[in-house]
Amino acid sequence: MEITENKTLPTKTECDGSLKNVIDAMYVLSGRWKLPLILCLVQSPKRFNEIQKEMASISPKVLSNELKDLELNFFIERKVFPTTPVSIIYEATEYTHTLKNVLAELSIWGEKHRDKIKQTGF
Amino acid sequence: MEITENKTLPTKTECDGSLKNVIDAMYVLSGRWKLPLILCLVQSPKRFNEIQKEMASISPKVLSNELKDLELNFFIERKVFPTTPVSIIYEATEYTHTLKNVLAELSIWGEKHRDKIKQTGF
Repeated sequence: MEITENKTLPTKTECDGSLKNVIDAMYVLSGRWKLPLILCLVQSPKRFNEIQKEMASISPKVLSNELKDLELNFFIERKVFPTTPVSIIYEATEYTHTLKNVLAELSIWGEKHRDKIKQTGF
Repeated sequence: MEITENKTLPTKTECDGSLKNVIDAMYVLSGRWKLPLILCLVQSPKRFNEIQKEMASISPKVLSNELKDLELNFFIERKVFPTTPVSIIYEATEYTHTLKNVLAELSIWGEKHRDKIKQTGF
């Protein structure tokens, strides 16, 4: 994953716009699991059990609800294949790939944050 | 706010690491209000009422709980000044500024997402 140059924070005149943008973004992305789930499915389409395995501490009920929410917001598609038994695959939509910069920056920050916690115990 | 170049998504071998990073990041940043609140206070220190005014639809109770959570995680400081009546100012910590790239990308995405919804009604 590429490391990006630091970006400048918005100027005062851009503040209201930026805040509105972030509020709107978090309206559809909030919750502990939505962004990790999106990343998990952007990496490759998966079955329910495969997703649950990757997101170790999520309960089946929460995972099921989060997947429904993501589907309603057009971030993922639930594809049913007529095999025996039926195969159900969850896949990130093309639109979801517009989140790749957000996910990349979150990953960089998450890694640094974990290191910081390990170092300082804070 | 600068527009950044698209970043590449992680390769398969980096996937597990990226997913863990994003899960860890969202462990402390999840919820509809934390990232908007952080941006609001990174822009400038503010009083409770000023924050509430900027985050139009947040209730005082939720705002109070969210500010406590952010303080416990060392993202903000609550400063009390011995004026009459006492002044309480909430301020982003230096560490919080490490989130500026995440906030910048979220703002860019939030703006595009709003435009997309307006255009397509999706």
